[in-house]
Amino acid sequence: MTLFEQHKPLLDRAIQAIHERTYYAAFPEHPKAYGEDAPAAGSNTYKEYLNANFDLPSQGEPTAWKGEEVSPFTGEPLNIAYPIYKTDHLVSNALKAFEEWKHVKPAERYGLLAASLEKMKNHFFDIALATQHTTGQSWMMSFQASGPHAADRALEALAMGYYELTRFPEKVLWEKPMGKFSVKLEKTYEPKPKGIGLVIGCSTFPVWNSLPGIYASLITGNAVLVKPHPKAILPIAICVAAIQHTLTENGFGPNTVQLAADSAKHPITKELATHPAVKLIDYTGSTAFGNYIETIPGKTVFTEKAGVNSVIFDSVKELEPVLQNIAFSVSLYSGQMCTAPQNIFIPELVAVGDQFLSFDEVVTQLKDAFNNLVNNPKMGAGVLGAVQNEQTKERAFKAEGMGGKMWLASVAVKHEEFENSRTLSPVLLEAGAADTAIFESELFGPIAIAIRTKNTTESVKLSKELAAHQGAITCAAYSTDEAVMKMIKEEMEEVFTPVTFNLTGPIWVNQHAAFSDFHVTGGNPAGNASFTNPEFVIKRFVWVGSRKMV
Amino acid sequence: MTLFEQHKPLLDRAIQAIHERTYYAAFPEHPKAYGEDAPAAGSNTYKEYLNANFDLPSQGEPTAWKGEEVSPFTGEPLNIAYPIYKTDHLVSNALKAFEEWKHVKPAERYGLLAASLEKMKNHFFDIALATQHTTGQSWMMSFQASGPHAADRALEALAMGYYELTRFPEKVLWEKPMGKFSVKLEKTYEPKPKGIGLVIGCSTFPVWNSLPGIYASLITGNAVLVKPHPKAILPIAICVAAIQHTLTENGFGPNTVQLAADSAKHPITKELATHPAVKLIDYTGSTAFGNYIETIPGKTVFTEKAGVNSVIFDSVKELEPVLQNIAFSVSLYSGQMCTAPQNIFIPELVAVGDQFLSFDEVVTQLKDAFNNLVNNPKMGAGVLGAVQNEQTKERAFKAEGMGGKMWLASVAVKHEEFENSRTLSPVLLEAGAADTAIFESELFGPIAIAIRTKNTTESVKLSKELAAHQGAITCAAYSTDEAVMKMIKEEMEEVFTPVTFNLTGPIWVNQHAAFSDFHVTGGNPAGNASFTNPEFVIKRFVWVGSRKMV
Repeated sequence: MTLFEQHKPLLDRAIQAIHERTYYAAFPEHPKAYGEDAPAAGSNTYKEYLNANFDLPSQGEPTAWKGEEVSPFTGEPLNIAYPIYKTDHLVSNALKAFEEWKHVKPAERYGLLAASLEKMKNHFFDIALATQHTTGQSWMMSFQASGPHAADRALEALAMGYYELTRFPEKVLWEKPMGKFSVKLEKTYEPKPKGIGLVIGCSTFPVWNSLPGIYASLITGNAVLVKPHPKAILPIAICVAAIQHTLTENGFGPNTVQLAADSAKHPITKELATHPAVKLIDYTGSTAFGNYIETIPGKTVFTEKAGVNSVIFDSVKELEPVLQNIAFSVSLYSGQMCTAPQNIFIPELVAVGDQFLSFDEVVTQLKDAFNNLVNNPKMGAGVLGAVQNEQTKERAFKAEGMGGKMWLASVAVKHEEFENSRTLSPVLLEAGAADTAIFESELFGPIAIAIRTKNTTESVKLSKELAAHQGAITCAAYSTDEAVMKMIKEEMEEVFTPVTFNLTGPIWVNQHAAFSDFHVTGGNPAGNASFTNPEFVIKRFVWVGSRKMV
Repeated sequence: MTLFEQHKPLLDRAIQAIHERTYYAAFPEHPKAYGEDAPAAGSNTYKEYLNANFDLPSQGEPTAWKGEEVSPFTGEPLNIAYPIYKTDHLVSNALKAFEEWKHVKPAERYGLLAASLEKMKNHFFDIALATQHTTGQSWMMSFQASGPHAADRALEALAMGYYELTRFPEKVLWEKPMGKFSVKLEKTYEPKPKGIGLVIGCSTFPVWNSLPGIYASLITGNAVLVKPHPKAILPIAICVAAIQHTLTENGFGPNTVQLAADSAKHPITKELATHPAVKLIDYTGSTAFGNYIETIPGKTVFTEKAGVNSVIFDSVKELEPVLQNIAFSVSLYSGQMCTAPQNIFIPELVAVGDQFLSFDEVVTQLKDAFNNLVNNPKMGAGVLGAVQNEQTKERAFKAEGMGGKMWLASVAVKHEEFENSRTLSPVLLEAGAADTAIFESELFGPIAIAIRTKNTTESVKLSKELAAHQGAITCAAYSTDEAVMKMIKEEMEEVFTPVTFNLTGPIWVNQHAAFSDFHVTGGNPAGNASFTNPEFVIKRFVWVGSRKMV
């Protein structure tokens, strides 16, 4: 049984899922599904990585070993060193691997890559700890986001890729009737990969944001260089190693994917991105660098940059469950998700059931919701996780100086498990509709701004303008009025921003489910790519049809 | 019966055809299929256009009436004036139309656009004369290229567009099991058009090269501005009018597509292309302007620029049918097709059946093949057609000065029907493999260069380099050796150039059939777009998914 045959049922189910878009998860999100011994085994494996070199021998002799990861929970360095290579060395390895990989048929590529996800599954628990102690995500979020959710998104990219690669026949007989005779041509159609793909990762979602690009480039026949953020290498290094081992075990050269680690002091991203052999770039990170990446000539680029996400508050049946939901969305991983809401547009008067509450009444209750969450000993620190870096912490602590009324300042929050954890409470700031300087940019981290508007029309107008000019990845809206909901949806969708209505309970606007939710639309300045629409895979290869007289 | 229902069988057949890629033609290419009276009726209609204003009343009051078309066959001006508008006026019309069109469902859009092709079909014979007397194509080529072949490519774009627009469900219930309960979201998926599409036409294929972009933008919900070359407006103006009339007759605003004519003296292309409301640009024309178009920030661009197409001559069974085929390919419409071969790479020794012929022997016979074709009173002038403009004629006449050995100089050819026709015979020049300055650029028009190489390996090396750096849309190759064919195919496909092997008889490398041959791969400098791969339509809209708590 080939790897393809072995993993074919999964492929069929995934292709069905991306086209049906109903609920599907190939990798269970509950840690319990992975067996009783898995957490302890993962913990042991994780400890073995610490204070050691992370070796990737197939990539050759490194020029240096470097590492600078520090746990946001303990404040301690992980003390792991990664092999550092010159750009030309990595590119030369990649080109060699590409010569083999580009000739591998899509079915065989799929079999190998699906097998690599199986191998990664055995590492979900060490990837979780690696993610936790580099990004600051809670253990549970680390497990889900870098484990099953990331693997689902990788499978989604594989399924979409396989579907598109095999969409046209490999060979046909074309017969044109010409009256008494016919002209016959044998035609072939080949999806030709573009070359080397570079995947540039970020420090907050080093796996979830990188796997789709890695797998999309690989399934379409490209070789891949993975350039992680120097502060969050381990989680994706484990994934790269899993793919390399899968390739080796099946008789393929492993350097089809390589880790291109660097350091903050000697960054190599620009050198890699501008190398003529690099044809594809997947990027997650700041808008400024993303805009630069998008303008490098001759590259096919997939970006996820910053966005300013809004909550549009129109009317609700009950206030409390709504405010709890919003407070949770903002607090989850301390607002360090690209999908976290920042600007909460609330009109002067909000219809709550049969009565009207004022802006101040609503914000007072929102403040309470934040406090209740943060001070809940069972939830608070767990939801907040830790802040990945000092700049984000300082941004929150300095929010007082931004102008606007301070409803909640950020304070240090005690984490029961990690006493040195960089955990802080969210800021709740008030701004007027005219105070655009306060809320018009992404304020990455745990900062929410309640914006006082005349009415929902003004809220929508401001949200729409921000999405059009600054980008937006999500928009949460609350309304009990079908006509208002229709208006909000139409207006926000015009600037290519998806709207989620009336969430309460254990589901949040931050969550984008594989196989169902497109992540980022690609239509506004928040990024030009979408996980995983057809464009995300088909721009990675070129259809070439050739013909032969029969 | 709605227009959609009426044209649904055609849609189903076309979607099947684009995925099967076997022979299919929705519009018969033989003029006889259109009835005995059609040619005379078309001729009368064409005469009514001459010496008159081409009015498009829905577009509003023009600022001027201008026209500068001159028949390459008669040398006489057509004396047709087209309405000239300010860019802001056209854009404002388009934005108004877009407000309506973007809300029309894909099925209804398809019904209307399929109906517009039916209406265009009634104009195939006047479009043919309009094409002939602006481009210089023979009547038969004008009929086929601007009539059935263009309509087939338009239908192909419609079918691909409809397929992609309806690929994901409009609405689903997403239900995530959460143990004792489940979270339910109602999700919607909408393909949102980007805005206004600009389609910039060329003087040689004003319909064939423009219809795919026009129909691809329209089916995906965008409004379209059609900017023809000032020397070839009439053919596409008839198409625009047909679409406008179809829209009006069915109760829709006609300005979803508008003619944006200009003059050589006051060009408006840059103004249109850089207008912020213009989001999509389809361009056919010179490399220099195409490169500029590709770098305008914030636009989604589809280009077909210049390419340098090669013939790779390795070995043949019989020489004569091969040389006849090549001579025809070069001569057809005087080499003014983007798919016409220019560089004919011939090694020192060519295996012909059991013997070997020298380069000189092969080129001598190639010269004979050219002469036989040009001097054949039944074919010559008909195959050559007329040269569209004076610059192309001068380029051919001045080929003597390029260096290299002149095997055939270009001379005026008498056209039986049109005594003033700008008809000339093709140039056949010889160059050495090292004389890249002679053959490395596109020499638009009837110029063929026989390049003397050491062997096929050198021929392939040169062809590949040219395709990589200058672009190539086609490559014809002749070999009797399977291993050599495999090598040529692999090498040329690496630079995203399709290869056609061993053509003889009534089929030529120049021809790209709708529903089967991708036209341009999009992977080399000849252009970034391909008729009609999925990318050609999906980049024109954005998937936006929204969610609502149930």
